[in-house]
Amino acid sequence: VPPISSRQNALVKRVRRAMREHAGEIVLEGPKQLDDAIAAGWKPIAVLRRGEDVTDDVFDSIADTRSTQGVVGLFERPGSTAAAILSRTATVAVALDAVQDPGNVGTIVRLAAAFDAAGVLLLPGCADPYGPKAIRASAGAVLSVPTAPVTPEELTSSGLMLCAAAAGEASADIPSRNAVLIFGNEGSGVSPLLLDAAARIAIPMSHRVESLNVASAAAILLAESYRRRA
Amino acid sequence: VPPISSRQNALVKRVRRAMREHAGEIVLEGPKQLDDAIAAGWKPIAVLRRGEDVTDDVFDSIADTRSTQGVVGLFERPGSTAAAILSRTATVAVALDAVQDPGNVGTIVRLAAAFDAAGVLLLPGCADPYGPKAIRASAGAVLSVPTAPVTPEELTSSGLMLCAAAAGEASADIPSRNAVLIFGNEGSGVSPLLLDAAARIAIPMSHRVESLNVASAAAILLAESYRRRA
Repeated sequence: VPPISSRQNALVKRVRRAMREHAGEIVLEGPKQLDDAIAAGWKPIAVLRRGEDVTDDVFDSIADTRSTQGVVGLFERPGSTAAAILSRTATVAVALDAVQDPGNVGTIVRLAAAFDAAGVLLLPGCADPYGPKAIRASAGAVLSVPTAPVTPEELTSSGLMLCAAAAGEASADIPSRNAVLIFGNEGSGVSPLLLDAAARIAIPMSHRVESLNVASAAAILLAESYRRRA
Repeated sequence: VPPISSRQNALVKRVRRAMREHAGEIVLEGPKQLDDAIAAGWKPIAVLRRGEDVTDDVFDSIADTRSTQGVVGLFERPGSTAAAILSRTATVAVALDAVQDPGNVGTIVRLAAAFDAAGVLLLPGCADPYGPKAIRASAGAVLSVPTAPVTPEELTSSGLMLCAAAAGEASADIPSRNAVLIFGNEGSGVSPLLLDAAARIAIPMSHRVESLNVASAAAILLAESYRRRA
């Protein structure tokens, strides 16, 4: 089969749209990401190699050769659900409340894998965990950690203990299971509605800073939760 | 005094050079950073406000108006020394070994403030803690945390316990004082020379990831060291 040579080819347009929209289909970049995804059970819809499946010119119209090393794969967005994640009560789930920086979202997905959290739930306003920056920051962990959108109501009606990471006095100890750890927006923290519904967990620290970076707070609390579960 | 209107003015050139080189003089951006620095005891050599001290055109040749909000300050690079940091033995010092990402360096400076470390020592190959990305990631903590370059020999001859954060089996417990915590390069970890000279401290985690992000590891170990000191 000769390589696709038209930028207007239907598959090429579909890949370009997936890169732009991160909706029902997502694009992974580079041979390592593709291998890891397939090893983790992801099924590629299509793989496009520069100069093989598409011409160099068409490939360059889709993606940057350096970051992709000349190969991209189109995948269905993996489908987990909030209910499935919340049902794994032998550990804790993570919920992110408007965490906007994709680097933070990806780093927290990596921490969820390292410390065996049930998954990462995304309240409204979060960066997409399947965007290229988040995938890079997750060091591939996004391929094996379930993520799903969630509403505040799904959390408050879950029957699990809700624990918000917040500055100030703690009202609860760090949980090891049967709980959701909620981490808030980089600037404004956990939103008032959820803060009201949740116990507060805190990290003892000096008064020299007002707060920690959200990924630093997640690292400390998830590591401690894991230690208590062991 | 009318605003400086020449891009070739000596002070303008000096500010531009400081932004490029981050050598003996550094540039801070925006009114908040300048206020915080002055409150922390930094002495400005010069402050340039867009439209006041320099013309709009000259300011725009120096810096981006959005990120600076139209004001930059030229400061002497604050001078701490490895010896001064290593002498604060009632807590732990942090040493970074070729940590290349300025976001990681800045985040670790913020953690050093949060958990009262003696300071941040920079082995060869680290990103500049006074570069704009590192300053932003430090959330201003770089203004109050001593940092200084250090050589491996200064560490090994310091008489302090050296502890390297490394994957695998720990050979020592997390220290609370009289020690240096060494964190390594994002890809290759702590260099062999220092790894040989140091005890290993490790973070219990699942086998689902090979390693943590260096700033995540620093968050967990510095928080635990602080807790043990309290």
